[in-house]
Amino acid sequence: MGTNNPQINQEEIKAVPFVADESIEWENVAPGMNRKIMGYDGRVMLVKVSFEEGAIGALHSHYHTQISYVDSGSFNVEIDGKHQILNKGDVFYVAPNLVHGVVCLKEGMLIDVFSPMREDFIKASVY
Amino acid sequence: MGTNNPQINQEEIKAVPFVADESIEWENVAPGMNRKIMGYDGRVMLVKVSFEEGAIGALHSHYHTQISYVDSGSFNVEIDGKHQILNKGDVFYVAPNLVHGVVCLKEGMLIDVFSPMREDFIKASVY
Repeated sequence: MGTNNPQINQEEIKAVPFVADESIEWENVAPGMNRKIMGYDGRVMLVKVSFEEGAIGALHSHYHTQISYVDSGSFNVEIDGKHQILNKGDVFYVAPNLVHGVVCLKEGMLIDVFSPMREDFIKASVY
Repeated sequence: MGTNNPQINQEEIKAVPFVADESIEWENVAPGMNRKIMGYDGRVMLVKVSFEEGAIGALHSHYHTQISYVDSGSFNVEIDGKHQILNKGDVFYVAPNLVHGVVCLKEGMLIDVFSPMREDFIKASVY
């Protein structure tokens, strides 16, 4: 969090083929949860979300398909009322409009993919 | 490669919310390159691609948007004639129809995301 690396703004990301991890600043989105939007176009967006142990991605839903990859750590994932503990290397798929959320059991990171892209993330970053 | 875990067939993946890494078999797709299709619907697909050092993802293009996350290892990535070395945590974005490829410099894995999904991957697996 809070390095001195130059930050790429959201509009530029869209056109950048190569995105170094350290070129994007972490953005705090909830207690113990930080996010980096790594790339997108209208069709798809890839986002890193880091979680401290105990951090909660609250239950919510959206019309976008979501596929998430567990990069590290351990998570109790809830989708449409079903729970599963997922660890490094596992994946979950959230069909459009299903209620879902996570509780972080062990510090780690999810790679969240959305299709189409999350316009709401970009607006939130700009305004 | 070649564990005795039950394999989820391609049609089932589509509807499975929770996908354990070990439930999917590696599929050899090129020398030193193996793939697991982890989840998809019509909009988007998430695929793991493991590379041995020296393995080559040959230059090619497709109409899908691709965003790839470097899960581990080191890769020389070429997109539209530009080269960049990317390491764990970095991302690359391939706009539709741009010629791209990778050379693995250090054993590792990419998380490849495609939008829309790669119908050609599913056909190749079924037939």
